[in-house]
Amino acid sequence: MSYPYSKVEGTVSFEEGPKPKNAIQREREAATFDLDEMNYFLEGSKETALETRGFMSQFERDPILAASPKDYDASKPEHRQITIQKIDRLSRYIEVDTFDALERRMNLLSVFDPSFHTRLGVHLGLFLGCVRGNGTPEQMQYWLLTKEAAYVKHIYGCFGMTELAHGSNVAGLQTTATYDEENEQFIINTPNLGATKWWIGGAAHSATHCSVYARLIVKGKDYGVKTFIVPLRDSDHNLMPGIAIGDIGAKMGRDGIDNGWIQFSNVKIPRYFMLQKYCKVSADGEVTEPPLNQLSYSALLLGRVTMVKDAFRWAARVVTIAIRYGVGRTQFKAALAKESDPESQLLNYPLHQRRLIPLLAMTYAFSNGANVLQETLTTTMDELDKAVAADDKSKLDASVEEMKSLFIASGSLKSTCTWLTLNTIDQCRQACGGHGYSAYSGFGKAFNDFAVQCTWEGDNNILGMSVGKQLLKKFAAIKKGEEATGILDFLGNYKKLAGTTPVLETNDLKDPRKILLAIETALVRACIRADAVLEEKKGDTDYIGADLVTLSKLLAHFFLLKAFLDKIDASKDKKDLLPLLDLLAQLYGAVVVLEGFSGTFLTFSVVSTDAMAKNSTEHIADLCAELRPHVIPLTDSFMMSDMMINAPIGYYNGDIYENYFRVVNQNNPPKNTKAPYSSELEAMLGRSSLAERQRFEREDETEEILSG
Amino acid sequence: MSYPYSKVEGTVSFEEGPKPKNAIQREREAATFDLDEMNYFLEGSKETALETRGFMSQFERDPILAASPKDYDASKPEHRQITIQKIDRLSRYIEVDTFDALERRMNLLSVFDPSFHTRLGVHLGLFLGCVRGNGTPEQMQYWLLTKEAAYVKHIYGCFGMTELAHGSNVAGLQTTATYDEENEQFIINTPNLGATKWWIGGAAHSATHCSVYARLIVKGKDYGVKTFIVPLRDSDHNLMPGIAIGDIGAKMGRDGIDNGWIQFSNVKIPRYFMLQKYCKVSADGEVTEPPLNQLSYSALLLGRVTMVKDAFRWAARVVTIAIRYGVGRTQFKAALAKESDPESQLLNYPLHQRRLIPLLAMTYAFSNGANVLQETLTTTMDELDKAVAADDKSKLDASVEEMKSLFIASGSLKSTCTWLTLNTIDQCRQACGGHGYSAYSGFGKAFNDFAVQCTWEGDNNILGMSVGKQLLKKFAAIKKGEEATGILDFLGNYKKLAGTTPVLETNDLKDPRKILLAIETALVRACIRADAVLEEKKGDTDYIGADLVTLSKLLAHFFLLKAFLDKIDASKDKKDLLPLLDLLAQLYGAVVVLEGFSGTFLTFSVVSTDAMAKNSTEHIADLCAELRPHVIPLTDSFMMSDMMINAPIGYYNGDIYENYFRVVNQNNPPKNTKAPYSSELEAMLGRSSLAERQRFEREDETEEILSG
Repeated sequence: MSYPYSKVEGTVSFEEGPKPKNAIQREREAATFDLDEMNYFLEGSKETALETRGFMSQFERDPILAASPKDYDASKPEHRQITIQKIDRLSRYIEVDTFDALERRMNLLSVFDPSFHTRLGVHLGLFLGCVRGNGTPEQMQYWLLTKEAAYVKHIYGCFGMTELAHGSNVAGLQTTATYDEENEQFIINTPNLGATKWWIGGAAHSATHCSVYARLIVKGKDYGVKTFIVPLRDSDHNLMPGIAIGDIGAKMGRDGIDNGWIQFSNVKIPRYFMLQKYCKVSADGEVTEPPLNQLSYSALLLGRVTMVKDAFRWAARVVTIAIRYGVGRTQFKAALAKESDPESQLLNYPLHQRRLIPLLAMTYAFSNGANVLQETLTTTMDELDKAVAADDKSKLDASVEEMKSLFIASGSLKSTCTWLTLNTIDQCRQACGGHGYSAYSGFGKAFNDFAVQCTWEGDNNILGMSVGKQLLKKFAAIKKGEEATGILDFLGNYKKLAGTTPVLETNDLKDPRKILLAIETALVRACIRADAVLEEKKGDTDYIGADLVTLSKLLAHFFLLKAFLDKIDASKDKKDLLPLLDLLAQLYGAVVVLEGFSGTFLTFSVVSTDAMAKNSTEHIADLCAELRPHVIPLTDSFMMSDMMINAPIGYYNGDIYENYFRVVNQNNPPKNTKAPYSSELEAMLGRSSLAERQRFEREDETEEILSG
Repeated sequence: MSYPYSKVEGTVSFEEGPKPKNAIQREREAATFDLDEMNYFLEGSKETALETRGFMSQFERDPILAASPKDYDASKPEHRQITIQKIDRLSRYIEVDTFDALERRMNLLSVFDPSFHTRLGVHLGLFLGCVRGNGTPEQMQYWLLTKEAAYVKHIYGCFGMTELAHGSNVAGLQTTATYDEENEQFIINTPNLGATKWWIGGAAHSATHCSVYARLIVKGKDYGVKTFIVPLRDSDHNLMPGIAIGDIGAKMGRDGIDNGWIQFSNVKIPRYFMLQKYCKVSADGEVTEPPLNQLSYSALLLGRVTMVKDAFRWAARVVTIAIRYGVGRTQFKAALAKESDPESQLLNYPLHQRRLIPLLAMTYAFSNGANVLQETLTTTMDELDKAVAADDKSKLDASVEEMKSLFIASGSLKSTCTWLTLNTIDQCRQACGGHGYSAYSGFGKAFNDFAVQCTWEGDNNILGMSVGKQLLKKFAAIKKGEEATGILDFLGNYKKLAGTTPVLETNDLKDPRKILLAIETALVRACIRADAVLEEKKGDTDYIGADLVTLSKLLAHFFLLKAFLDKIDASKDKKDLLPLLDLLAQLYGAVVVLEGFSGTFLTFSVVSTDAMAKNSTEHIADLCAELRPHVIPLTDSFMMSDMMINAPIGYYNGDIYENYFRVVNQNNPPKNTKAPYSSELEAMLGRSSLAERQRFEREDETEEILSG
């Protein structure tokens, strides 16, 4: 059946409507490279890429697990219920998956169903991560395998760290675990309102157990914060005695998670519920302290590393939507167009290119950075486990050094990449104009769900400051002769990079390796300056807080650009990919130098004002223009299915308006145009006259009577 | 009744909890100025300030109109119903208010109930504004007063401008209004899916009439887009024939508005339903064209101007919340603290100060800018009306010039201030850490509701480009000898300001008037540079799109800082206010130069790299520190009641944790800790063994049988 000019299948129309799909299809067909190869580049390897596709098919074909536009109309109670149904369904995969595969599968989940990811992630990643990280092998075996918690069976765990009045300062938590020698038990207590466990994901409805962070008090002595397994609900899912729990209620996003608060009123747990990998309390109250307190926070590392990969996928998703829309949508005519020219594609405007194509380049730069960080974590944790198992002091020391380096890298990348991605989500929304504001375009939910990534598992500013402090500490040590290593290797060159000689001249911006050197130089010079201010301020690191965060951001860009260029170097045989990858690296670097940190680069004379003036308008604009014809293949290469995209204006086929119209009408069938509350509305419109409702008490006649 | 250490009224506790209210109260008591006077400064005058308080009391005491934390848990259907109840209630005020007072009352509404504001604003501001702006006096009289639409009676109007495939390019709309001479009627038609009216606020359920923007076609000739009143629903609220309407459904925010889509299938309206102030069609099809097409878009001006005031109030609200929280919350110890020191107030950290106090300064700068713009609009519209009424060509020309200047000022301010405020909302959220993510802290809803302000009634980037273009056009004209006037006055000095001599040396940043000169200088130099590139690119304004937007932003900051300083100069008798106002102006200006546009100021050598290096760390930090003790009185001066704040962590009394705990429990009574879907969850946890569910088909015994 084919009607002339029909745009919605099976309807007639008066004239031909817009055809966004044609433009998208045309650009798709003009791809100059192999999309599979590009996808392998982004995913790290062909093997990983294929595994990812396999997971994606399982998700999108599954009637329970698949995301859909229906999600945008789910209420909070519906969302929470659906999430449990999804966890139930996924638990069947967990029973047959390997743990490694599960982690990668979960990572994908995060993009298209963040509530699901987090609600399950709190149990698998945080609760079980805490048991793994702080429990003895026997304790781990018992809770994870014997009790089957690892399969989301019998036990549902939550992670009781944050309190109402204590978040980032974990060492300042106030919940107490007082040892009672006589009965060989701990008494867990919430001493005041501020110590109420708060934000605890899963506490409101799901959790049976909680890994509680509480101050260990033995014989009146406070040993600081340790971890304890505290049952919250019995096997009938009723609250244990002394446990009070409430629902935290509505949040900015992630409606599917039942965050709650918990108060403990002298709750008793047996001594062996304490996680005793590092710190032990003997029956008669003798305390063995851990070699390094930081080790017990290693559970947080996985989360941070994962969030960098998350940032890549979320950015890839929203950039794909905005770019497809920008190619399909037409608006106004170009400035130099003829009268007879049609409206121009949005993405043919240089401003629109400048708004989106740098974000695409940044997303490409995220990809390998995330992969490298992930691999480093795996290696480091393996080595740490081996060192602990072998009780080898020198290996343990080496592992701790590696961990410190990883804390710096992951802190800097987690904070920088989540900030950039949150901004990317909103920029992409704005780039889709009014339609970006529709819930069905996905940006609203994406922003609300993602926003918390800037705050949790290390507030971005606090992480940034902490990274900056480590950098300065290392810099001070290197000045005194210590060797520069790992991610801070470049500090070894500080003498060469100091000074005020510009590193980037006008034409150097075409060489990404020179940009990398410029970032190093800016980092070194900013360190020198911060170090000087710090000395002047007698070591008051608080005073230079903002500069510390800038150092952390620059470090992240250094890491990302380096990882990106290294991966490009390792892909020299992919001839058709190289020209575009090189342009993307140039653009990413140029935006860091000319836009994001232009003030810093100019202040420290890393780039000359001349080069800046010449390049700030033209260079980025020209790079964007060069990349412009390739944006559809470059976003297609992320290989996000429509289910992952979950935004009709960004679906693969490019039928923007038809897809969008269909989804709007599926979710809101236009059968009844009277609202359920229509009678109230109609009564307002049809109300009697003001004079009548005032009982004619203010009419001229009344005036006469009452004034008479 | 007073329990020891009781923190939640009427409960016992084990020890004293945190006391955020004490810190806030202490700083409040140390105020160095009269808060009423500061409030008058912000509101423009004592008279306006008192009127505002009057409106506020009426709103917050009214059981229907008042906002409350309950709003954060309302579903979309509830939100929509409540909104109609509020409109119903407010319509009773409208019947007895003056139109001027109504406008200011509505403006307040926008901050604490944006859905309510917009849903009613579409009728009062856009629909009636369109009738006022484009109808003859008789048409205005008929629809507004005879039919009582002005009182939200009998008629509920919507504004039919945007189409599915056409937003910003109004001239490109495709809905047609074809004149049928024989029957003296227009036939309104939607020719294809892309021409479907889209995003129409009020269309889904409320509207009885629509002011439709459609192409006037007479005798086959297309006269471009004109306005027509088209009835959508009859007095029984049923759809008229030929009208199809659907609900647009879920949005990023503003759930209370029933945005819809409308398709017209040859809908007939009488000739006199066309709004004919400027363009007329006679019975036999003779068309009189308007003197200036832009005049018919003047309805958009009010919206833009209002949004600048909105930006002030929204920023004031979120800054108040974040600053109260930052003063009340303690976290970690200061870098140079002693072991015995307590945790430090968040806002005592220089980084936290730098995150929030510049936003406070910016909000102060917004206040008078918004007031000045508002007054200019009132004067200009009055003069235009007089000129049109008198049919005075020279006065009309003068008015049109004024209008053009107002389009520049309002376009630049609307786009810049809404962007800054959207960013402010999220920065304030992040500054409240995890609790910023609670819906009850207000930031999530604020962001979602406010986000659309960057897009509607002139997309910010398109407005910015258009402002930049006007600037360059004027600059080119001035170069040729035309006089510089109005907001672009400073361009007259371009010869003096050109070149590369720095205007700001290290110590000049303490003089806000010098900063103002620096912004002028940057504007002029950026104009010169853009003008040169434009010449090179043969007039392709698209190519310099990003620079045009930068020009627009700088122009807005110039306008805001100037208005702020002018108001300060006019307040020389308020001795106790002046020192703080001066610091706020310094800080606002310093952030524009040293942070927001550091790259621009350095590139054009408006500030020397030396001054930048010396100041970028210390100057802003020191100004923030100077303002730090005054932040509570400075935010109290906005005089936002708890109802307007609607965020327990930011209530006036400073009982952060108690307020928050109470609201969470009021909205989510902790009676039932089992979820309605608990059985599904419990079934998952208690499920039988994997072997059993696999029917023992994969057990060793089975292997033996099947392999045997």
